[in-house]
Amino acid sequence: MTSVPRRSLLAKGALGLLGGGTARAQDAAPPLAERYRPQAEKIIAAALASDVAYRRLGYLCDRIGHRLSGSPQLDEAIRWAVAEMGRDGFDSVRAEPVMVPRWVRGRESAELVAPGKRPLVMLGLGGSVGTPKEGVTAGVVVVRSFEELDALGPAGVKGRIVCYDVPFTRYGETVRYRSSGASRAAKHGAVAALVRSVGPVSLRTPHTGAMRYADDAPRIPAAAITIEDATLLSRMASRGERSRVTLKMEAHTLPDAPSANVVADLRGSERPDEVVLLSGHFDSWDVGQGAHDDGGGCVAAWEAVRLLRELGLRPRRTVRAVLYTNEENGLRGGSGYRDAHAAEIDRHVLAVESDSGVFQPLGFGVSGGGERALALARQITPLLEPVGAGKIEAGGGGADIGPLMERGVVGMGLNVDMSRYFDIHHTPADTFDKIDRAELNRCVAAMAVMAYVVADMPGRLDGK
Amino acid sequence: MTSVPRRSLLAKGALGLLGGGTARAQDAAPPLAERYRPQAEKIIAAALASDVAYRRLGYLCDRIGHRLSGSPQLDEAIRWAVAEMGRDGFDSVRAEPVMVPRWVRGRESAELVAPGKRPLVMLGLGGSVGTPKEGVTAGVVVVRSFEELDALGPAGVKGRIVCYDVPFTRYGETVRYRSSGASRAAKHGAVAALVRSVGPVSLRTPHTGAMRYADDAPRIPAAAITIEDATLLSRMASRGERSRVTLKMEAHTLPDAPSANVVADLRGSERPDEVVLLSGHFDSWDVGQGAHDDGGGCVAAWEAVRLLRELGLRPRRTVRAVLYTNEENGLRGGSGYRDAHAAEIDRHVLAVESDSGVFQPLGFGVSGGGERALALARQITPLLEPVGAGKIEAGGGGADIGPLMERGVVGMGLNVDMSRYFDIHHTPADTFDKIDRAELNRCVAAMAVMAYVVADMPGRLDGK
Repeated sequence: MTSVPRRSLLAKGALGLLGGGTARAQDAAPPLAERYRPQAEKIIAAALASDVAYRRLGYLCDRIGHRLSGSPQLDEAIRWAVAEMGRDGFDSVRAEPVMVPRWVRGRESAELVAPGKRPLVMLGLGGSVGTPKEGVTAGVVVVRSFEELDALGPAGVKGRIVCYDVPFTRYGETVRYRSSGASRAAKHGAVAALVRSVGPVSLRTPHTGAMRYADDAPRIPAAAITIEDATLLSRMASRGERSRVTLKMEAHTLPDAPSANVVADLRGSERPDEVVLLSGHFDSWDVGQGAHDDGGGCVAAWEAVRLLRELGLRPRRTVRAVLYTNEENGLRGGSGYRDAHAAEIDRHVLAVESDSGVFQPLGFGVSGGGERALALARQITPLLEPVGAGKIEAGGGGADIGPLMERGVVGMGLNVDMSRYFDIHHTPADTFDKIDRAELNRCVAAMAVMAYVVADMPGRLDGK
Repeated sequence: MTSVPRRSLLAKGALGLLGGGTARAQDAAPPLAERYRPQAEKIIAAALASDVAYRRLGYLCDRIGHRLSGSPQLDEAIRWAVAEMGRDGFDSVRAEPVMVPRWVRGRESAELVAPGKRPLVMLGLGGSVGTPKEGVTAGVVVVRSFEELDALGPAGVKGRIVCYDVPFTRYGETVRYRSSGASRAAKHGAVAALVRSVGPVSLRTPHTGAMRYADDAPRIPAAAITIEDATLLSRMASRGERSRVTLKMEAHTLPDAPSANVVADLRGSERPDEVVLLSGHFDSWDVGQGAHDDGGGCVAAWEAVRLLRELGLRPRRTVRAVLYTNEENGLRGGSGYRDAHAAEIDRHVLAVESDSGVFQPLGFGVSGGGERALALARQITPLLEPVGAGKIEAGGGGADIGPLMERGVVGMGLNVDMSRYFDIHHTPADTFDKIDRAELNRCVAAMAVMAYVVADMPGRLDGK
């Protein structure tokens, strides 16, 4: 269990700032923490005592399993969520249709064929093309950066399989090799790309994830291999041994498939047309169970809204749970929601996403809404501190709420202790046994408190 | 890197004990540490500066790979070691023939077929029989102990697949379910056994290992599954969901195959017939590379003797490196050595084994030879402390040197920091990238110093 940090981030400066100008609607009112303490305590007590989120996430993971866009499992998950939400007594539950890409992995393998023969542990990257039936067999050239690749140029790369052996630093940094490594290599004539899995540790653990082809390069097959196998190829290269690999992938993309965002509302008592949105993404990669990524975020968002209803805490504004489809390989859920709700985007006062795992929550990262939104969020922190989630940072959000944020909606990401997240991210090990019930419940509590206060407070978070 | 503990275990009591009686041969001499400090410092400096062990272990792992008894890879490793040792200039190098069991894994799979269908990540257990071609399909009963199994009895077990979901405590404790779980379940009528992998953590990581059939139970197929999958079956059972699994294994045992212990001597200058033996086991399971288990121990033992020769440190007694065959599934190497050397067992003054990984060495565990051996070993600790290996404990040894120890030979096991060992033990992740060159070299240094002093000191370690 992660120890719960107790930070006191309700700086006097933040209150002073509010008093000084940008949040005049609050001037006459007591600070938010004081005003909403009884409700927050009620929410937290109920969230921590509940097993609803844990049981639901268990069902989603263990009985439905992973949920790639366009797969029968994601369809089943959507039907299940809509049915369960119907029983929860929300004011509105609906599956809002979205067409999604349908990438299919098929059988796949990678094998070192020289020197010696042995299997490499791999996962094709989402979006990759397949290989011919007999596979692609070629010599391997190992690089540790794009700079090294470009320095080699076609003379060193043409006709070969490029292996990126790039150690994990930060996800946003290292993931570039997974996303665009294939096309960067293809421009120099490579016939396939192998990418060291994007994660800090490995027990021969492959990490899949999305890749994208550039328009101006041949489309070559791309797969992740484990840290163990990438460093093996690296060592062989550094010893001057010429390694050859056979890569076989049946990967292909089918026509777009119907899918849906699942949306459930607890209608606001006074301003039902104004919306505070809590979300995660319901799709996952086609390995493991999509437990932390992002079944947990979906169930936490859903449960936060359900809890408010169960507790009879109906705020002034509508609180909405959205389980987005297709975050992993297309973001069609996020853009589809934006398009379907185009006429009411300016009535979204806040969009929150949980997509960093449901580990110990630390707080929220806030984007948009200026100093006012940040300062108001910081007024709420004393209410979040009992669950360790009292840290408000500038910056943050989520991929699915990105299209709303681009249109000016204030976005928040639930920040959690991510120290173990990238160990399992996009791997067969992202499974329900990694979920800690108490941590999950604290995520629920943090989302519910934030949503309730922002949905009920007199002025809009963004001051509009 | 592991921090190097600096323990001062040369208790005054140990010296006093020696002076008091049991080690009279040492009375007139200065303590061993004082006598051998220059040589020890020379050995340590050379070991730490060398890349021979690291390079050789890299070749063994990366180029030859895993080495199951009877496999072409183990044969290749034996030929390679004999050839390399020939170049090292030992006084005698030989492959001493031993027949070994030959278990072959074949293709294998386990699949949850209800509720829902999904693959389980598994490794058949060494020694297991296979299944019929169509596999074994049956309902699963999950138990957490043998007591729970026996309480269920045939009424709860007959015709079913028993899954042992037993969390890791200590290896010696938890491994019982792997070793004897199949027969214990078969006695109640089970048709197959699945064992939660014996390890503390998992990234969907299966751990293979040996199992043994009892004579009085039907031989049913047995496989390890990952912690993730064992806890999945457990959760399903606790929810009252009836899970069914199909297990397919081609595993079978072929006739015994020829193999060999590899033996290399640095002949003693005064008492060449007395032997100090340093060892590891050269075979491994048929996954990963057998890097820490136990390519590292073999290479460290070998390198320790090679270093003495290179440094011109020829002790009074013979120092012998033995790379045993077939530790994992038969122990024929250890018993074969005992039988081949039956006439000279009493001239083995010490047998050391490294088979806990080549992590940071901590010291040695000593069995046999009474207080005298323990006290003399403790005299040597100041020489081992510069590499962090200064802790001498009572008890220890190794599986391969067990047959010698049973015949009265003093045994020592190299103790190391095992905190990460069981994460990778018997898994596809026991690979060369887990080897730290400095830690490996400190293991070499510790073994070489211990061997040199015991082989050179005036009296026998065991006082015989």
